[in-house]
Amino acid sequence: MQHDDYVTRTRNPAPRSLRRDPVIHAGPEHRWDGPLDEVSLSNFERDGFLWIRGFFSHERMAPFFDELADMGEDRDLLACDDVIQDPDTGAIRSVFDMHQRSQRFSELTRDARILGMVRQLLGGDVYIHQSRINDKYGFQGRGFDWHSDFETWHAEDGMPRMRAISASIMLTDNNEFNGPLMLIPGSHHHFVPCQGATPDDNWKQSLKMQQAGVPSTRNLRDLAERGSIVAPKGPPGSLLLFECNTLHASNANISPWPRSNLFFVYNSVHNTLQQPFAARKPRPSFLAERGTPQPLEMKDPLENGFKHSA
Amino acid sequence: MQHDDYVTRTRNPAPRSLRRDPVIHAGPEHRWDGPLDEVSLSNFERDGFLWIRGFFSHERMAPFFDELADMGEDRDLLACDDVIQDPDTGAIRSVFDMHQRSQRFSELTRDARILGMVRQLLGGDVYIHQSRINDKYGFQGRGFDWHSDFETWHAEDGMPRMRAISASIMLTDNNEFNGPLMLIPGSHHHFVPCQGATPDDNWKQSLKMQQAGVPSTRNLRDLAERGSIVAPKGPPGSLLLFECNTLHASNANISPWPRSNLFFVYNSVHNTLQQPFAARKPRPSFLAERGTPQPLEMKDPLENGFKHSA
Repeated sequence: MQHDDYVTRTRNPAPRSLRRDPVIHAGPEHRWDGPLDEVSLSNFERDGFLWIRGFFSHERMAPFFDELADMGEDRDLLACDDVIQDPDTGAIRSVFDMHQRSQRFSELTRDARILGMVRQLLGGDVYIHQSRINDKYGFQGRGFDWHSDFETWHAEDGMPRMRAISASIMLTDNNEFNGPLMLIPGSHHHFVPCQGATPDDNWKQSLKMQQAGVPSTRNLRDLAERGSIVAPKGPPGSLLLFECNTLHASNANISPWPRSNLFFVYNSVHNTLQQPFAARKPRPSFLAERGTPQPLEMKDPLENGFKHSA
Repeated sequence: MQHDDYVTRTRNPAPRSLRRDPVIHAGPEHRWDGPLDEVSLSNFERDGFLWIRGFFSHERMAPFFDELADMGEDRDLLACDDVIQDPDTGAIRSVFDMHQRSQRFSELTRDARILGMVRQLLGGDVYIHQSRINDKYGFQGRGFDWHSDFETWHAEDGMPRMRAISASIMLTDNNEFNGPLMLIPGSHHHFVPCQGATPDDNWKQSLKMQQAGVPSTRNLRDLAERGSIVAPKGPPGSLLLFECNTLHASNANISPWPRSNLFFVYNSVHNTLQQPFAARKPRPSFLAERGTPQPLEMKDPLENGFKHSA
């Protein structure tokens, strides 16, 4: 039996514990070897995320929108296992494996600016653990309940340590009414175990509506009272980097404006998957890369130079 | 058969029409006889609502909170027809007839400042058509879909004209995350007919989750594209006056913070209820007062003088 610092999916409620991994993994001698300065680093360390409004310009994002529009007309796509539909409406909710579907998206994962920040935060080489687009159509897309990605990845995929980061690129405007991502700042410092065994093939259900891996209301209340809740808002091309254990959620899209966000999950090559810590068998590879990790190599950044566009 | 300017609950989709009633009912000679100046009046005319942040101070609201806390411990209350529970959790969603339950709430409906504004907007004597509290507990309260109150009151209660106003007093902080009321500014200028006959005893279902009386996505999209969406936010004691035909909705409460709002619906004594325009029988009196209207008389205002506290 493997040792486990982060026991979860227990029969009885268990208390939360402090995280046992650094938030910034670069050692002191390499801490500033990268695009982020100490202000950004210490914000990320404190809050568990970093928000850069308008990181990519609309012009630079346009080819991605065009490619997605083409994809949206592909009838065969809907039949794939890695395309998740809304249980109520049948509308596309998530499309996984974006970096495998398209050269353009694959190159975006290696954009020198994003990869530079992620390598700095995770302390060295990284690979793509998962990639996806989450869509919420106007008046339709339901929300996602509060959860820690790490809790699921640890329990169901066998990710051993907290050493992964999600980069989320907004593909549409994210505003107050179209179901923007919400985060609890500081929640990444705590591991919140979830009660209840993982059902077999839980992912078929959980990607539509989560039932296992749900933190207790008491823990959510405690952490939100301490850290409050924030919902970064901005135009397409804005970038959110968030730590794998930061609690996040989103509400339904109650507006006519679609909300679509791209997610690349970067994992350290020193944190490759083992057997699931709290599930009988691993999830499919479109949810969790289990092959020999290929460290990502930087591409020229999408924007000219390293200047932020906003 | 009574003539009907606002045909709704039709078998087939019907186009929307412009409203056939004034928004401000006082004639030119009485327009400024009241607490509102032309800036506020023309804002209300344009947007269909008026928001006064921190209208009552926390100190003035405290006795109301105490009375509500006592009410919350009353087990018999839950069994009443006019207390609506959440279909998922059983938590209280709405309590009707607040002005009948309590002397303090009854006096609040006659607060000289509120009643003065309502009389000015509706052009003369008014009575209470309905009163209620809508509660959303932390992490629980589900939202309300987009709707016009007038559409329901016309179809199911027989309210003939658009000559009613809701005064909503915030009993808790209303913030971005606890499911605040959202409105589409300018939507009150349009009557949006809804498709589908009203089921018998529709209210037993519709107060929990609306199915009849839902405007089409196309109309919602059009009107939100024109007027956008706003969600007034503020501390307990803030006041929202909104026109009976303004489209509004709210999202789920995804925060740990409860959201509780009090609503008094004022109707003009010249607009008393007839037979329902699109339902077989009228709804119960806790939803729609059908007795001989007693014009409300002003009480001394809750705050000293007419000064706004914010």
